[in-house]
Amino acid sequence: TLTSELGIFHKSWLSIVSLWFGLMSKVCKFVRNAWDIGVNDPGKLMHGVKVGAALSVVSLLYYMRPLYYSVGGNAMWAVLTVVVVFENNVGATISKSFNRMMATFLAGALAVGVHWIGCHSGKPFEPIIIRASVFLLAVTATFSRFIPTIKARFDYGASIFILTFTVVSVSSYRIDNLFVFAQQRLSTVAIGASMCILVSIIISPIWAGRDLHFHITCNLEKLADSLDGCVVEYFKEDKDRNHGESFKRLQGYKCTLNSKGLEESLCNFARWEPAHGCFSFRHPWKQYLKVGSSMRSCASCIEALVGSCINSKIKVHESTKQPLRNLCMRLSCHSSAVLKELATIIKSMRRSSRLLLLTEEMRIAAKELQHVLKSQPHQPIPSPSPQNFDFTSTLKNLRLIQVMPLLTVTSLLIEIATWVERSV
Amino acid sequence: TLTSELGIFHKSWLSIVSLWFGLMSKVCKFVRNAWDIGVNDPGKLMHGVKVGAALSVVSLLYYMRPLYYSVGGNAMWAVLTVVVVFENNVGATISKSFNRMMATFLAGALAVGVHWIGCHSGKPFEPIIIRASVFLLAVTATFSRFIPTIKARFDYGASIFILTFTVVSVSSYRIDNLFVFAQQRLSTVAIGASMCILVSIIISPIWAGRDLHFHITCNLEKLADSLDGCVVEYFKEDKDRNHGESFKRLQGYKCTLNSKGLEESLCNFARWEPAHGCFSFRHPWKQYLKVGSSMRSCASCIEALVGSCINSKIKVHESTKQPLRNLCMRLSCHSSAVLKELATIIKSMRRSSRLLLLTEEMRIAAKELQHVLKSQPHQPIPSPSPQNFDFTSTLKNLRLIQVMPLLTVTSLLIEIATWVERSV
Repeated sequence: TLTSELGIFHKSWLSIVSLWFGLMSKVCKFVRNAWDIGVNDPGKLMHGVKVGAALSVVSLLYYMRPLYYSVGGNAMWAVLTVVVVFENNVGATISKSFNRMMATFLAGALAVGVHWIGCHSGKPFEPIIIRASVFLLAVTATFSRFIPTIKARFDYGASIFILTFTVVSVSSYRIDNLFVFAQQRLSTVAIGASMCILVSIIISPIWAGRDLHFHITCNLEKLADSLDGCVVEYFKEDKDRNHGESFKRLQGYKCTLNSKGLEESLCNFARWEPAHGCFSFRHPWKQYLKVGSSMRSCASCIEALVGSCINSKIKVHESTKQPLRNLCMRLSCHSSAVLKELATIIKSMRRSSRLLLLTEEMRIAAKELQHVLKSQPHQPIPSPSPQNFDFTSTLKNLRLIQVMPLLTVTSLLIEIATWVERSV
Repeated sequence: TLTSELGIFHKSWLSIVSLWFGLMSKVCKFVRNAWDIGVNDPGKLMHGVKVGAALSVVSLLYYMRPLYYSVGGNAMWAVLTVVVVFENNVGATISKSFNRMMATFLAGALAVGVHWIGCHSGKPFEPIIIRASVFLLAVTATFSRFIPTIKARFDYGASIFILTFTVVSVSSYRIDNLFVFAQQRLSTVAIGASMCILVSIIISPIWAGRDLHFHITCNLEKLADSLDGCVVEYFKEDKDRNHGESFKRLQGYKCTLNSKGLEESLCNFARWEPAHGCFSFRHPWKQYLKVGSSMRSCASCIEALVGSCINSKIKVHESTKQPLRNLCMRLSCHSSAVLKELATIIKSMRRSSRLLLLTEEMRIAAKELQHVLKSQPHQPIPSPSPQNFDFTSTLKNLRLIQVMPLLTVTSLLIEIATWVERSV
């Protein structure tokens, strides 16, 4: 039994050790992950430093006796405001600060008003009026957060409105001078909020507008790469196929597919930002959303292309692809060139005649492709380019299923070209 | 000049009146909008009532003298917690409450600990230690919110951690018994949070899990309808075309395209919820995300289908579509039947042998379609069904471009069938 007990001891010891190592490896992984994030995007670490700095400044309200007494011990609200309002980009910080200040002002004024009405309507009515107003306003403001226009711009404000109204109106039970209380609350919130805005603008600002701009151009480039990659991958001869690096490039379009939420929130924040860099105050941010939505349709087509052609089980012999190969590749080349040019134009924010040229070229390529398709298989058109020389004879001997993926690619490419044209 | 002055007066009066009416019409529209939201989804109004109720209960901490003094005037934290933590669904409320309580506990304990160390390290070091710790922890905690695992589950907790730590540690300057202060803060937060959890579970609860469940089944049905509608629309004869109602039904797939964020957050919240209805505590919520992601790929294909075939400029004569019409419609019928059956299965949460049957039928339909395509145009296969009787002869006389949309539809349908199979 001694050996068995030792065995149990040994086993449990082993399990504890393995648990410990498992935990440690998880912690290590987590730390490495965090380190990578910090190294790849120092702006994120910088954001932390900015929050720390703003908090340190605001906590002077506690440390300095005259400041502390001037806000009547309400210094906590300034700290609270900084923690809650300070966001990653300037637009979000300004939007939240503005929401918080406006909501605090409105709710404070309303609460003081209701209190005044309560005071003047006699003893038995006062508590009823105050409690009923708290309940009713909480219901209304909470409900209003479901209304899309409010939700998009004043969601945070509505919640602060309920908060302030409840706190001020309920405090009237315990506080003598409600007006001073409300006013101190407003001034501490204003101190905190303006501190956030100042720090976020002065110390290495991160602009939502610039992020949106960068995001759209980056996605445009990825989309162009994906499109190019897809078509090359499809028309490549089997022996050249090399999954790996090229496959990763192909996946670029996926970033675009699920970016709607991000783009909308960035656009929303960008509208709050003052002029910065090459963006004026009333920069047409909504245009970015339009481009983004066209890009998503484009990305959907690429997804369908990847699914139905590249990963398709129906194998098509190389010679089948030959007749349309060059035309398709030309169209996709032109489409991705338009996308890339669009990215450069957006980047540099200059009109370029090259875009029109490229779009025209793309349109011509699409028309040519359609023309070749139209004239088949009735009579071989006299074509100057050698690629459709033996077009009819090749296709005639084929089975329909072998032409199908090719034609699908073609029609999706034409569709992509239309979308690209629409986003120009 | 009198007449001209009168003219100016008249004009400005008119513009004021028109402004006023414009404003009033906007307000009316807003109110009608809000009313519609309330009528269509009374749960949203109910949520408002619940928040109001929870706030009224928590404000008893102010109204009742013994309660007020037992929390040492910190009643405000309970009100604050209710406003900030109470979310639309139970899972979100529990997740935020838990985050808030844990973060308050940890940060309070840490702040008291740092204060103790500061006190024992002598006068000159105390302020340095406290200020440095506030700065460092604010930087770390803010940065940690960028780490995906933290962001997904403890984002709110991290912000409350900074908040509590800063408030408690900075208050040590002005408060004698820091331990009691931290403990009162924790207990008021706990009162507020548990009030939220109670109210949200007891009064007509809205479960994130049930929402997710409903969202997925609803989207599955919409997807099936869209698929059906698309194919019917495409193969319908021109004279029957009737844009309007059917067009609206077609758009159902769009709900699926941009639902990733919503599904992920609902899934995240659902994992916090206790067992309710037919959902156990460890319900496999992640499966819903998998189904959702397959559905999105499906919806992408439908988007490509709508773009490249239904809205295509290349008009194809009805007779061209004839040969593949029945086969395509059969495949799409089976695909949407599988989607609908999947929706019913998820709804009833019972295994059904019918799903396997339908999937098998869909697979057979896809194979048959591929088979017909494979055997063309070499020799007409002896087919029992009349639809491919004059198949070869019809297609032979066509131009390639006229076959193209048809083949694209076909290949996209086959692709959709594959995705449908994958989500089963």
